[in-house]
Amino acid sequence: MRPSGRDVSEMRPVSIETGVTKHAEGSCLIRIGDTHVLCTASLEERVPPFMKNSGLGWVTAEYGMLPRATTTRMRREASAGKQGGRTVEIQRLIGRSLRAGVDRVALGERQITVDCDVIQADGGTRCAAITGGWVALRLAVNKLMKTGEVISDPMTDPVAAVSCGIYAGQAVLDLDYPEDSEAGVDGNFVMTGSGRLIEVQMSAEGATFTREQMDKLLGLADAGVAQLVAAQKAAVGV
Amino acid sequence: MRPSGRDVSEMRPVSIETGVTKHAEGSCLIRIGDTHVLCTASLEERVPPFMKNSGLGWVTAEYGMLPRATTTRMRREASAGKQGGRTVEIQRLIGRSLRAGVDRVALGERQITVDCDVIQADGGTRCAAITGGWVALRLAVNKLMKTGEVISDPMTDPVAAVSCGIYAGQAVLDLDYPEDSEAGVDGNFVMTGSGRLIEVQMSAEGATFTREQMDKLLGLADAGVAQLVAAQKAAVGV
Amino acid sequence: MRPSGRDVSEMRPVSIETGVTKHAEGSCLIRIGDTHVLCTASLEERVPPFMKNSGLGWVTAEYGMLPRATTTRMRREASAGKQGGRTVEIQRLIGRSLRAGVDRVALGERQITVDCDVIQADGGTRCAAITGGWVALRLAVNKLMKTGEVISDPMTDPVAAVSCGIYAGQAVLDLDYPEDSEAGVDGNFVMTGSGRLIEVQMSAEGATFTREQMDKLLGLADAGVAQLVAAQKAAVGV
Amino acid sequence: MRPSGRDVSEMRPVSIETGVTKHAEGSCLIRIGDTHVLCTASLEERVPPFMKNSGLGWVTAEYGMLPRATTTRMRREASAGKQGGRTVEIQRLIGRSLRAGVDRVALGERQITVDCDVIQADGGTRCAAITGGWVALRLAVNKLMKTGEVISDPMTDPVAAVSCGIYAGQAVLDLDYPEDSEAGVDGNFVMTGSGRLIEVQMSAEGATFTREQMDKLLGLADAGVAQLVAAQKAAVGV
Amino acid sequence: MRPSGRDVSEMRPVSIETGVTKHAEGSCLIRIGDTHVLCTASLEERVPPFMKNSGLGWVTAEYGMLPRATTTRMRREASAGKQGGRTVEIQRLIGRSLRAGVDRVALGERQITVDCDVIQADGGTRCAAITGGWVALRLAVNKLMKTGEVISDPMTDPVAAVSCGIYAGQAVLDLDYPEDSEAGVDGNFVMTGSGRLIEVQMSAEGATFTREQMDKLLGLADAGVAQLVAAQKAAVGV
Amino acid sequence: MRPSGRDVSEMRPVSIETGVTKHAEGSCLIRIGDTHVLCTASLEERVPPFMKNSGLGWVTAEYGMLPRATTTRMRREASAGKQGGRTVEIQRLIGRSLRAGVDRVALGERQITVDCDVIQADGGTRCAAITGGWVALRLAVNKLMKTGEVISDPMTDPVAAVSCGIYAGQAVLDLDYPEDSEAGVDGNFVMTGSGRLIEVQMSAEGATFTREQMDKLLGLADAGVAQLVAAQKAAVGV
Repeated sequence: MRPSGRDVSEMRPVSIETGVTKHAEGSCLIRIGDTHVLCTASLEERVPPFMKNSGLGWVTAEYGMLPRATTTRMRREASAGKQGGRTVEIQRLIGRSLRAGVDRVALGERQITVDCDVIQADGGTRCAAITGGWVALRLAVNKLMKTGEVISDPMTDPVAAVSCGIYAGQAVLDLDYPEDSEAGVDGNFVMTGSGRLIEVQMSAEGATFTREQMDKLLGLADAGVAQLVAAQKAAVGV
Repeated sequence: MRPSGRDVSEMRPVSIETGVTKHAEGSCLIRIGDTHVLCTASLEERVPPFMKNSGLGWVTAEYGMLPRATTTRMRREASAGKQGGRTVEIQRLIGRSLRAGVDRVALGERQITVDCDVIQADGGTRCAAITGGWVALRLAVNKLMKTGEVISDPMTDPVAAVSCGIYAGQAVLDLDYPEDSEAGVDGNFVMTGSGRLIEVQMSAEGATFTREQMDKLLGLADAGVAQLVAAQKAAVGV
Repeated sequence: MRPSGRDVSEMRPVSIETGVTKHAEGSCLIRIGDTHVLCTASLEERVPPFMKNSGLGWVTAEYGMLPRATTTRMRREASAGKQGGRTVEIQRLIGRSLRAGVDRVALGERQITVDCDVIQADGGTRCAAITGGWVALRLAVNKLMKTGEVISDPMTDPVAAVSCGIYAGQAVLDLDYPEDSEAGVDGNFVMTGSGRLIEVQMSAEGATFTREQMDKLLGLADAGVAQLVAAQKAAVGV
Repeated sequence: MRPSGRDVSEMRPVSIETGVTKHAEGSCLIRIGDTHVLCTASLEERVPPFMKNSGLGWVTAEYGMLPRATTTRMRREASAGKQGGRTVEIQRLIGRSLRAGVDRVALGERQITVDCDVIQADGGTRCAAITGGWVALRLAVNKLMKTGEVISDPMTDPVAAVSCGIYAGQAVLDLDYPEDSEAGVDGNFVMTGSGRLIEVQMSAEGATFTREQMDKLLGLADAGVAQLVAAQKAAVGV
Repeated sequence: MRPSGRDVSEMRPVSIETGVTKHAEGSCLIRIGDTHVLCTASLEERVPPFMKNSGLGWVTAEYGMLPRATTTRMRREASAGKQGGRTVEIQRLIGRSLRAGVDRVALGERQITVDCDVIQADGGTRCAAITGGWVALRLAVNKLMKTGEVISDPMTDPVAAVSCGIYAGQAVLDLDYPEDSEAGVDGNFVMTGSGRLIEVQMSAEGATFTREQMDKLLGLADAGVAQLVAAQKAAVGV
Repeated sequence: MRPSGRDVSEMRPVSIETGVTKHAEGSCLIRIGDTHVLCTASLEERVPPFMKNSGLGWVTAEYGMLPRATTTRMRREASAGKQGGRTVEIQRLIGRSLRAGVDRVALGERQITVDCDVIQADGGTRCAAITGGWVALRLAVNKLMKTGEVISDPMTDPVAAVSCGIYAGQAVLDLDYPEDSEAGVDGNFVMTGSGRLIEVQMSAEGATFTREQMDKLLGLADAGVAQLVAAQKAAVGV
């Protein structure tokens, strides 16, 4: 019934390749089916002005799409002169999500910027970015711990995200693009490795949904995130 | 226990004054406690280019804050040269929410732009904007029906929104600014008059939450939205 | 003969409501007929860089229009990405006018920003902004004097403004929008409570005028400003 | 008493050299003392969208300053990414002023853009731009009449402008930069060859002025404009 | 003597992987040592406005760098709000270079946009972009020929580019980043498969060079481009 | 054979008038035929942030064109909101070229900004800008040496530039606009007074060229630059 032939609770194949760029303190290429996102974590020994002398660290994120990551070419945001609303919304979500898994006191007064650039898009890019972004962040923090710059591990729990939605009347896990563009209701669920919620964003474009449907999607998300966290742990060697 | 002395499930006083500007096809000033938002609905006999000749109508929204709506003056976005990420995120949410309550076929190929400008802010401005925005939209559509330009009512169900959050360890309804700035978890719930969900946005800044907490917030939201819908109906005289 | 039925030397009804927002140090909502402008004065304990350590204070102004303050909706400047030429011109005029009534030595090295946001427009918005802006400024300075931060009153004389023009061949006071859009010659006159001139801007779009006409307009303006200053004084309780 | 040793009613030397660029339909280099402005008039067989099929012509102006036209180098507006408020204000004034001397019906549905670029600044650049701009415009219209594209002369009367101000307590004509930067009150007066007024802009920075002072400045302006109009006529060979 | 231990006329290892993204009409990932550039060619059935109805095709290019392609993170151009001068210069060069190898009549009135995004940078990104860009373009044109949309092959000759420079007093081929940042003189040479020149850009930062040095660099470039063209041919299977 | 009737190796008449603006530390108006560029050198006692405390000086350049310097009016970049790609490319070239003739240690930690504004364009504006820019720079440095702020002359060798190209099958020197717009291959050659190369930019739009052609153009450039350097020396009185 799903265009891909997947079962309603079946995720696309997940792969996370680490160490993909030589300059970044942490990096990975995450592939969720045909959605490919390159994530890098860059360490900077400075924090935003409003955080100076707070003793707290900061984790922030930026998101971008290569112009031809999509079916038809999209205008390059750098040439358009600004980041679109969707981009801004997504990168704020990624930053918020990753910060929920970080003890900012333990991190100390430094900033890590996680860049998530979509090389190829097929639905669920923001969820892939969060999941891969956590891996890049984990690897960068590992480096800080190895050198002794950070003593106590600031990474409290893995953070991963998955999308679910109502497609053709059924709750399905991990929407790909053909499903996403048809689904009347879809949600993004950011969770920790221990199953706690960080962010729930459910939204209906020109439709509505019930508590029962919401609960069903949450159930699917639980299972999906567990799978992603396993992949994250394998990738970073825990 | 709440700074305002309110009960955990007690909303702030709500008032909706209609017809507050002489030019707009629909308008209201909504006050949720000390949060005051001016909402206008402007009718335009054109739709965005990608919708031409589709026969479908469009409802979109813009959001702004007067520079001194807040405790300290914020830079005017027009002078900064762009709308900030928070603004863009909010106005996309308002537009999506309002469209969920509109039958775009019945509306016909025309656009209604709902402007929500925050005159005074004390928490919950996006929820007030959605709730007041629906009233302005309803009034503008009434005008279209009176003139016969629209025959069958395109407004399917009232749309209203309320925020809830975990403040000082307790689930509370309708966060004001002192609560909002302290709450580790907060959510915005957009619902219809018949209790269906349109948008759920729960997010934890530097924290996490459980399904049980989420359910408690949803319960509070249900009650809050019912109260708001009653106020909307009274305002538009249904 | 005037669309409103007013006499040539008759102003529209004037009302100034103070204390309309809880955050600003000074605020008022000024209504000149159907032109409604919200004015707030925000105190900041800093001055522009070029004024540092000068011992002098600074008063500046910003001006904006809500998108549907006008008959047809205008594009939001924040979304257009810049303030238009008209906006910039007006806010420079407001700032210059208000500074003419302030002793910057007595004010001391601090800045007051006066925001004038047009809620509803029906001609004469810049004049209403100056007149209401002075009230907001006066109230903010009162606060500084009450706390003893400022000892000697820096407000030297009230500042108010009115427009006049040649409509249908006759010099008329306080143009409303239907008159303004027809008048070949119109002027804005900023004056002090004691009748001295601060700014005279007379301009003819596609026309010219004589010294005699100019003198007639100045005469009307004198009377109009006297009325506005009386309203200002009543509003601030002098 | 004046820094330049000039008499209070003495203008700086005026020279207008025409035909200074080979591409423009009309051009001149106007020198008012050490203020040098290059003015070109460019003919375009199109009008702004809102004027299409109106049968009316349009005259518009743009103003710029070379970065080192001033005592210290100013940032190039093209590199700053926008025209400053002062630039916008001035170019709107130039356009309005020139249009007052043009019969737009006789011009026919075409646009002439007058560019005024300040090569060297020493006070009074906007007045020099208007005066020189009229010469460039006149020459471009001459071309249209020679080719028969325009039959009846649309240039109704020469347009010229001069500044006056209160310097060291005295009303003086044609302020140069040392005077302009000291004057508490200054005005720009745009007039026609027959002595009618087009635009009067008097403004006091941190000061006020009286009707008597205003009248004195107007008297000086009358004499100054007469001199400028004579120079214009000589330049265009009338 | 070279930091990498390479011989003066030795290129870094070259690899070109084609078909790396599923959406683009043509694509490759080119690796010149540690410089990795993703190139996609996007077909659009429209040309720039000034080329409409000319019957001629158009090839254009855009260039970008992921923020952490470099040793230290660079600001994302989309968030900075504009493309920097270096970016603009490079993408103009890529477009010009590729057009030199295309018969625009044979291509017909359509546009191909080549996007070159640097995933990892280690010197010579613009040359890698041109070389990889040609491969992506070739593959996209192959598709047009397979479908019969284009009959006669518009690709006249392969186009490739290499950099050379004077490093530590010696002419060396294919500068990597450590060399590039030290070289007083460096050049980029764009050539065709048959050895003709398309673009020569030699430049000295704070230095000068002689005709003899220039000739030496040209000789190295000849050999380097020949190697690159062989790799291109192998990649596209000719 | 050339539209101007010039011999293939004949430059247009060159004139360099110095001291053309009273504010700049150095200035000239260079005329190469109908190409007229105003060049000013502005001294600033500060350097870019990344150069602070380096003890080194900095020379940078900006380039602009008056809107009607060209056959048809071009949009003003300040009003377009950004400098175009061509402008950015040219001003980077001018800066690089001039720095090649400056000993930055001898200059000391100060910045000189060379502004090159095209008053009238007829081909070869960037070359004229470099040649005239050097004169302005030389004059500004002379001032610094006269006052003793700079002791040892930082100007190592004159810098001048000329364009050559293949027009109608023949290598010609100093392309004017009619030639430039037709030439398939053209180059800009920046050289020192002693004949060393600083920058070579040869490029073919939709064409290619050979080493022999390149050598021929270099030969012409040699002769052209020698002539320009003679004019520079005459202008600065060496």
